[in-house]
Amino acid sequence: MSKSLGSLVEALGGELLGDPATPIDRLSPLSSAQTGALAFVAQDRYAHQIQTTGASALIVTPALAAAAAARGACIATSDPYLYFARLTQWWRAEHAPVDAPAVHPSASIHPDATVDPLASIGPFAVIGAQATVAKGARIGAHSVVGARAQVGEGSLLYPRVTIGDDCCLGDRCILHSGVVVGADGFGFAPEAGRWVKIEQLGAVRIGNDVEIGANTCIDRGALDDTVIEDGVKLDNLIQIGHNVHIGAHTAMAGCVGVAGSATIGAHCTVGGGAVVLGHLRLADGVHISAASVVTRSIRQPGHYTGMFPIDDNAAWEKNAASLKQLHRLRDRLRAIEQAMAHATPETPESP
Amino acid sequence: MSKSLGSLVEALGGELLGDPATPIDRLSPLSSAQTGALAFVAQDRYAHQIQTTGASALIVTPALAAAAAARGACIATSDPYLYFARLTQWWRAEHAPVDAPAVHPSASIHPDATVDPLASIGPFAVIGAQATVAKGARIGAHSVVGARAQVGEGSLLYPRVTIGDDCCLGDRCILHSGVVVGADGFGFAPEAGRWVKIEQLGAVRIGNDVEIGANTCIDRGALDDTVIEDGVKLDNLIQIGHNVHIGAHTAMAGCVGVAGSATIGAHCTVGGGAVVLGHLRLADGVHISAASVVTRSIRQPGHYTGMFPIDDNAAWEKNAASLKQLHRLRDRLRAIEQAMAHATPETPESP
Amino acid sequence: MSKSLGSLVEALGGELLGDPATPIDRLSPLSSAQTGALAFVAQDRYAHQIQTTGASALIVTPALAAAAAARGACIATSDPYLYFARLTQWWRAEHAPVDAPAVHPSASIHPDATVDPLASIGPFAVIGAQATVAKGARIGAHSVVGARAQVGEGSLLYPRVTIGDDCCLGDRCILHSGVVVGADGFGFAPEAGRWVKIEQLGAVRIGNDVEIGANTCIDRGALDDTVIEDGVKLDNLIQIGHNVHIGAHTAMAGCVGVAGSATIGAHCTVGGGAVVLGHLRLADGVHISAASVVTRSIRQPGHYTGMFPIDDNAAWEKNAASLKQLHRLRDRLRAIEQAMAHATPETPESP
Repeated sequence: MSKSLGSLVEALGGELLGDPATPIDRLSPLSSAQTGALAFVAQDRYAHQIQTTGASALIVTPALAAAAAARGACIATSDPYLYFARLTQWWRAEHAPVDAPAVHPSASIHPDATVDPLASIGPFAVIGAQATVAKGARIGAHSVVGARAQVGEGSLLYPRVTIGDDCCLGDRCILHSGVVVGADGFGFAPEAGRWVKIEQLGAVRIGNDVEIGANTCIDRGALDDTVIEDGVKLDNLIQIGHNVHIGAHTAMAGCVGVAGSATIGAHCTVGGGAVVLGHLRLADGVHISAASVVTRSIRQPGHYTGMFPIDDNAAWEKNAASLKQLHRLRDRLRAIEQAMAHATPETPESP
Repeated sequence: MSKSLGSLVEALGGELLGDPATPIDRLSPLSSAQTGALAFVAQDRYAHQIQTTGASALIVTPALAAAAAARGACIATSDPYLYFARLTQWWRAEHAPVDAPAVHPSASIHPDATVDPLASIGPFAVIGAQATVAKGARIGAHSVVGARAQVGEGSLLYPRVTIGDDCCLGDRCILHSGVVVGADGFGFAPEAGRWVKIEQLGAVRIGNDVEIGANTCIDRGALDDTVIEDGVKLDNLIQIGHNVHIGAHTAMAGCVGVAGSATIGAHCTVGGGAVVLGHLRLADGVHISAASVVTRSIRQPGHYTGMFPIDDNAAWEKNAASLKQLHRLRDRLRAIEQAMAHATPETPESP
Repeated sequence: MSKSLGSLVEALGGELLGDPATPIDRLSPLSSAQTGALAFVAQDRYAHQIQTTGASALIVTPALAAAAAARGACIATSDPYLYFARLTQWWRAEHAPVDAPAVHPSASIHPDATVDPLASIGPFAVIGAQATVAKGARIGAHSVVGARAQVGEGSLLYPRVTIGDDCCLGDRCILHSGVVVGADGFGFAPEAGRWVKIEQLGAVRIGNDVEIGANTCIDRGALDDTVIEDGVKLDNLIQIGHNVHIGAHTAMAGCVGVAGSATIGAHCTVGGGAVVLGHLRLADGVHISAASVVTRSIRQPGHYTGMFPIDDNAAWEKNAASLKQLHRLRDRLRAIEQAMAHATPETPESP
């Protein structure tokens, strides 16, 4: 479904240079865009592609507007990437409008549940006793909303999401397929070589505008609740342990594991595959690199990393073997320094 | 639902000091407990909180009983953490009694399946041909019990668990949402640059009192079965490859991966995000730190670790770059030692 | 169900030495095989087990045929492991024939969907508008095929697989329980400390003969599609980000994470728990060890590793502490070398 460039600028703003009638059939990456495509130039380092792209129109910064306009239509805006984000939302809404609210006849809804007349419930979904599904919420096929659980206004559960008993979800959240909110936290007391289960009596509280990726798990608290604040974005296959607290607008990439009772600040980012150990505290604005293991609390904002550098296997084997001797190497180095200090007082001092 | 401290001690034992009529409304962490709460002091290092907590009653060791009794009611017991674990079980049973057994009318039960009259089957659950669901077992909504699979007495499958054909599960197990037992192991033979599938003809055998966390996967064996012994506790998002054998009462934290044919002893613990490579053997009582990679068999009980220490990114970059030179640094160090040994025979010897 | 060794060779080829009437009841590992079992000797280093195994018959290379025949029946073939793979397929087909195609009456099939009469649809499966399910495809219980999605001929979806809207799957694919194809990629533009969602307008395209393990996720592309080429094999709990491209016949073990827009060549292997960062390019024939983090493009085929070697915890602590000083150690070493070069010109040169 083609849109005119003008209708798009009318909806989203920005300064239009060129023909408002330019037809836009699709959004494309700059490098592969062809006629009919609208593309964006997020960073100056891609500016050289302005001359070569086949896009019918470009979204650029004011600084690049003259160059872009010289080759065809463009939209000038202070933050092209943000403009592009809003454009994708508008594009989707125009091309895939949300169906009218409906409850599928196969859904299993407890008579004591409260489902707003403007909510949608998909095939085979299960809504438990005293659960609440608010206005505009959409519950996908096979999703389960547990007893006394709450789903806020406009929240979207894709097919096959589980919200455990007593857990609550704010407004405008998006939960992808396979998400499990409110499984038991991992808590056991040892007794003579066996594990005695600690029943997990808390729940999970999730704020507004939270997005949770496919197959990600957020465990219920042991006594108090696990808490995910507003605007948090979690990618796929993430594990959030019991009683974790994640501050607002923190984002985590795929495969991250956060152990129980960790408290993570607001506006943090955690790279893919990183691990945060339990009972730690991360300040606001902490950025953890992919695959790093957070073994201690981090009280200062900043960028932290711990990751073995990749190398060809033969080189790695040699270096890894040496690493097991590293402490001894340090001792040997110190011994040399001391011997040299004794022999020649002007050599560098050892600590 | 409030309980008297006395009724609780009557059920669980321990020595009660103070008023048995003290009402207990909830269980709370020591640090945030308020009036109406019961909290426990698991370790002496929290003893200083005894004076400041707002809890109505405390669970303490006999050594701390006098201090605790001086401020209000308490229960003295040799292992407060274990007492607390049992208390959570009792509390849950009192407050959320299990529903009477019932088969939801929407469930799809094969006519050749055997479902005990005292078992429960949730909405849209699927029970396959010749499958067996024993007394007191509860099969959650959307769970699938494959053909010839067995679920033991009192076992609990949360919504959306898959038990593959021919797999069996002991008594009193708990499987959380998204668990997949009995997917195919990852086995292929190479043929001229392509992969030829090795059908996985084994199954999975799981003992009694096993708990398996959300979205955890346990693959079926290639020829023999994959085996999980009694009392094993697996957290969320764990991968157990084909023909793995996990000994009794071993516990693994979230995001662990165990590759095919690894044999892990009894009473082991594996920290979150750790990886155990295939065909290895871990003795009983081996403890692996989080995020460590087990690349060789470990024959002695003990605590093992391999993890790059986290640092601020700038420091990490320097050290990681040096790490790629480590083997050469070792050679250079040896050369110095040899030169010095030649020059001055009293310097330390190089290996 | 017992098979004669002769019927097996008739179906699969190879040279039979010994009695074709030898009854085979099961396939077993060489080390635990008993009477009635057929086992294979994949590598010469297991040749010594030929004398001790209890197997009724063996699959061996021609070089080992004489030794094997001296103790009983055997099949000689140039690649016993490949022969074994084909045998498992034949064995399964003989013992567990596929049911006749059928659509379970509980399935929810959109009136605009196209389901081939020779396809099977399981209980509670959901087939969306304009979706296509081809001949011989089998859709497991609780699986969801989204609107306009396509499932190719003979593809098998185990229970509880989700194929998102517009995603397509080739022929003869196998998707295990919990797989999520086509969840949104993880894309957000920052705006004043908040995240603005970038709608993911692309889809996922999966080739022929692809196998995807339990609970693995493949995200849809932001603008273009995510692409998985023919013959790719993915194990369980793998995360494939948006716009990733995986070349033909590449295999990845469990718990791997591939970040967005990575391009991975054909015939690669990635070990369990490895992480590939975004926007990187791996050449054909690159092999990444388990738990390694790929932080840069790799343009040469070969074997690459980056993993902290495991050690007993006390030794690790010392070496990890020294590692944080490594760059300084290097400086100190250089200082010594310079001092020695000054003092004694014959010492080795520092870089």
